[in-house]
Amino acid sequence: MQGLSEVVAAVHADVAGHIGAGRVADYIPALSQVDPRRFGIAVITCDGERAFAGDAAVPFSIQSISKVFTLTLALERVGARLWQHVGREPSGSPFNSIVQLEQERGVPRNPFINAGALVVTDALLAGRRPPETIAEILGFLRARADDAEVSIDREVARSEAQTGFRNASLANFIRAFGNLQNPVAEVLEVYFNQCSLQLSCLQLARAGLFLAADGVDPLSGETICRPARARRVKALMMTCGHYDASGEFAFKVGLPGKSGVGGGILAIAPRRAAIAVWSPGLNAAGTSLVGALALESLVERTGWSVF
Amino acid sequence: MQGLSEVVAAVHADVAGHIGAGRVADYIPALSQVDPRRFGIAVITCDGERAFAGDAAVPFSIQSISKVFTLTLALERVGARLWQHVGREPSGSPFNSIVQLEQERGVPRNPFINAGALVVTDALLAGRRPPETIAEILGFLRARADDAEVSIDREVARSEAQTGFRNASLANFIRAFGNLQNPVAEVLEVYFNQCSLQLSCLQLARAGLFLAADGVDPLSGETICRPARARRVKALMMTCGHYDASGEFAFKVGLPGKSGVGGGILAIAPRRAAIAVWSPGLNAAGTSLVGALALESLVERTGWSVF
Amino acid sequence: MQGLSEVVAAVHADVAGHIGAGRVADYIPALSQVDPRRFGIAVITCDGERAFAGDAAVPFSIQSISKVFTLTLALERVGARLWQHVGREPSGSPFNSIVQLEQERGVPRNPFINAGALVVTDALLAGRRPPETIAEILGFLRARADDAEVSIDREVARSEAQTGFRNASLANFIRAFGNLQNPVAEVLEVYFNQCSLQLSCLQLARAGLFLAADGVDPLSGETICRPARARRVKALMMTCGHYDASGEFAFKVGLPGKSGVGGGILAIAPRRAAIAVWSPGLNAAGTSLVGALALESLVERTGWSVF
Amino acid sequence: MQGLSEVVAAVHADVAGHIGAGRVADYIPALSQVDPRRFGIAVITCDGERAFAGDAAVPFSIQSISKVFTLTLALERVGARLWQHVGREPSGSPFNSIVQLEQERGVPRNPFINAGALVVTDALLAGRRPPETIAEILGFLRARADDAEVSIDREVARSEAQTGFRNASLANFIRAFGNLQNPVAEVLEVYFNQCSLQLSCLQLARAGLFLAADGVDPLSGETICRPARARRVKALMMTCGHYDASGEFAFKVGLPGKSGVGGGILAIAPRRAAIAVWSPGLNAAGTSLVGALALESLVERTGWSVF
Repeated sequence: MQGLSEVVAAVHADVAGHIGAGRVADYIPALSQVDPRRFGIAVITCDGERAFAGDAAVPFSIQSISKVFTLTLALERVGARLWQHVGREPSGSPFNSIVQLEQERGVPRNPFINAGALVVTDALLAGRRPPETIAEILGFLRARADDAEVSIDREVARSEAQTGFRNASLANFIRAFGNLQNPVAEVLEVYFNQCSLQLSCLQLARAGLFLAADGVDPLSGETICRPARARRVKALMMTCGHYDASGEFAFKVGLPGKSGVGGGILAIAPRRAAIAVWSPGLNAAGTSLVGALALESLVERTGWSVF
Repeated sequence: MQGLSEVVAAVHADVAGHIGAGRVADYIPALSQVDPRRFGIAVITCDGERAFAGDAAVPFSIQSISKVFTLTLALERVGARLWQHVGREPSGSPFNSIVQLEQERGVPRNPFINAGALVVTDALLAGRRPPETIAEILGFLRARADDAEVSIDREVARSEAQTGFRNASLANFIRAFGNLQNPVAEVLEVYFNQCSLQLSCLQLARAGLFLAADGVDPLSGETICRPARARRVKALMMTCGHYDASGEFAFKVGLPGKSGVGGGILAIAPRRAAIAVWSPGLNAAGTSLVGALALESLVERTGWSVF
Repeated sequence: MQGLSEVVAAVHADVAGHIGAGRVADYIPALSQVDPRRFGIAVITCDGERAFAGDAAVPFSIQSISKVFTLTLALERVGARLWQHVGREPSGSPFNSIVQLEQERGVPRNPFINAGALVVTDALLAGRRPPETIAEILGFLRARADDAEVSIDREVARSEAQTGFRNASLANFIRAFGNLQNPVAEVLEVYFNQCSLQLSCLQLARAGLFLAADGVDPLSGETICRPARARRVKALMMTCGHYDASGEFAFKVGLPGKSGVGGGILAIAPRRAAIAVWSPGLNAAGTSLVGALALESLVERTGWSVF
Repeated sequence: MQGLSEVVAAVHADVAGHIGAGRVADYIPALSQVDPRRFGIAVITCDGERAFAGDAAVPFSIQSISKVFTLTLALERVGARLWQHVGREPSGSPFNSIVQLEQERGVPRNPFINAGALVVTDALLAGRRPPETIAEILGFLRARADDAEVSIDREVARSEAQTGFRNASLANFIRAFGNLQNPVAEVLEVYFNQCSLQLSCLQLARAGLFLAADGVDPLSGETICRPARARRVKALMMTCGHYDASGEFAFKVGLPGKSGVGGGILAIAPRRAAIAVWSPGLNAAGTSLVGALALESLVERTGWSVF
């Protein structure tokens, strides 16, 4: 294997011809106005080695990737009781489907579909006000990214709230089954803010590094969660991290990952590295098209597939 | 870590108090009459080390575990064209559900649900008669298990055929959408025979070893498939290997695996070992209850989780 | 056939032994506290003959029966354009199901499931404020019942709003597909108020009489709608008036009808009479159990089945 | 109202411009080769008056219209016990959908979808061989049509069998839930033969006349079934007679009816007449497009809507 920087440069070259492909999310102006030709990649190893290319330092809206971090926080707060409110199975459905929710009486299939993430956010809120909870999430991301510049794009959060009828529908539906403890409006407020976190690839890879290292931040030495919990979050990323294209991602990339409609993907090579890619054009399932290609290339070049 | 034999003995001790738990499959006499207190485990490493315990040498009906081997064979025969006829996504549904098949116009979600396995069997048949195809599958299993004693229980195959209305329904349904090339009766004949293969844990672990070693049988040196193909079969085992409990298995065990209603599970620790467990009592999702506990214990003791 | 009063008395006697059966709706206090032993029936013929028994003069919450009246009003206002926003098919699903709505991209199956009624209410609102629209609906019911005492139970409306998460979910879901023109909160406000209309059996039968007489109130001579429209509203009552028990009602009663969870049913015998029954205990499908029995008996005794 | 012959002639004229519209069923050659410009209509009143136009004397494949007659026969044979095996609700789904069948564990929604008709045929078979049962059905149709020339097109039956994978799937599926008593192959044999009955509009209207007259053939005086049973068969025709377009037919035509993919429709005007129309071009829901228009026109001109 070449040095990490050469690998990352080669991955960048591999995907260069595809940059701009895919369809940029257009449901809110803030996302639709992003330049489709952006592409960034950052890899940080458990030893602290860094390699990056393209727009790796440009912050983007991480959207659903935030679900990995709120799940970790909620599990630390409420423990395994969380699994009474949300399942651990792939849904076989798009990210915002409501069908299974009706059949399964308000218990979402997993924490990485929108319905499940709302339940996780509800668990995080427990007994507090939205601003505190939003501050806690932001604080966690800043600490994990080791960068106090990490922020929430309030304009994006406002837009999400104005157009978030589907999420409002999901939250009311779950509430109708008694599976939300906090007011629907408060759960949505926190949720729209967590989706509006903006991080660069470098910040995001750094923030996810504890997952690569069994729950301990390998650079700061801080314990974020138990090793078994870190493994389990990664198992969920593998089976459920990309909605109804999770199987395809596992098949082609072979790493636990989580994508967001902003075009970012966080992938974890256990005991090796955290990888963040960003390219705004999405495939039909809502995952970054060029981002997934870049990860395929990276895994091919490094042999980091868990399989 | 202890020696492998000590680990396997400790796993056996861990689950001893649970042996007999779960519900034995009862849809055909040959399965329902199996002693629910059977338990076997066998581990074979890529170096050829073996460790086993309990009824590891007793043959049992591998049922759906056969899908891993027919998938490998079919991919070698027809290549990536197979994916035009069957998907690669978790179904989120029980093993014999027909609902998605209607929505998705006869293209099964993945090769490890019954509908998908029928399509794989159809691809294997292509242009030949059932006896030849059954002989090919049996020959492949004998070669992989390095044991000419591996056999098909024809009595089980007959029973499957007599009670297999659900599979007959699935096959006719797929045929109605034009996604089977061979006569329904021939596809079913081969399918019921492959499900009736009987192997012991020792034979099954040996047969699956090529998947642990990137497609090359590490003991005989034979190439069975390309490394990328072996990885991809394992990715499918991870996301789809246990029907609508695949997420739970990934969460708790963290290894690619495939279960059968006969109570067997084949799990692969990439680049380390193949593991076979057998215990007839099933959980609600049709996976061996004690078998899954044994794998959880094994992974806890070895750290072999891919995550 | 006996005189109408004798028939109604005989019907009352037929069901007397069943009064109190069924399960009273309990999702809001105002409904759950109704005496389950209430039973009322009123028949008003196109000639103006009246017969009634039991609690026929006691107002009750008409709930979903209001959908018949708002549909008539909305059709008069927007005409056949309404059918671009809501279908005319039985749903085969419970009253508040969201599954079909997802498959059919936000266009509810028919105007008598909750989702469809929300779309009808949205059409009625068009360009006005909720209080005006609520006043219009109330005025229409007062005119049709020929009784200025007809009122809305504001306490019930408030309770509906506080517990109406499922309806809020439906409305947001429809809005997400762009099939509501007015703000979700305003549509819900009108909807919860229309459901809280309270009429007695006598008032309700009187209010529905124009449907029995081809769209013309036979007692006042007023034209409410064209004959074809009256027929079509009745066709929808026949095929969709009782959620996923509409077939059963058609099979046993054979009259177009509409039920509400308050325990009321409005049935129409074309060119003969309007009939209102009330008994709070519901069957599994949410239709008044004793009310349906009474209508079965009435039809048996009068031969008024349309079949 | 004009005389009946004038009305029928006027209806013919009303639809003349549309003849040839719609899509002819093409799943078997025998149906696809029918001239799309065929159009026939026949009306027979309870008084024995006849009026007809176009190809009213040309036999066509009645297909699913046969379900009305086998239901009547099966109810006479097994009585209300039949309803333990098949429901009475509109399905909200296409004629050959399998989805609900899985949710409802093998009990079809109603006797007029294919799955339900297979259960009805199974009840008719009970303890006999297919040829006897086919002979009984044919005999019943000949008696009802008062014409020994009524026949089964064996070529059509053979084609149905060769391409009937979807029906074979449904039958096996129902059998898997234990809801068929006879061998799948025998149920299918009878079913494919009943679908292949060929009658002209004149024969078909005559055959359905007992339904218009409360179960008694008004011309021969024979009692076919009790009045309540005749009403209930008509109620099912109203709510379930046209698959997922039953609501639309009720809305526009307002008569109980049953359509077949051969382009025929049998409609009943209670206590007035039986009407048969035939035009091979189908709408999206599989109902004769011009046939439905003709019935709309007829009802408009006669005021025969039950509403």
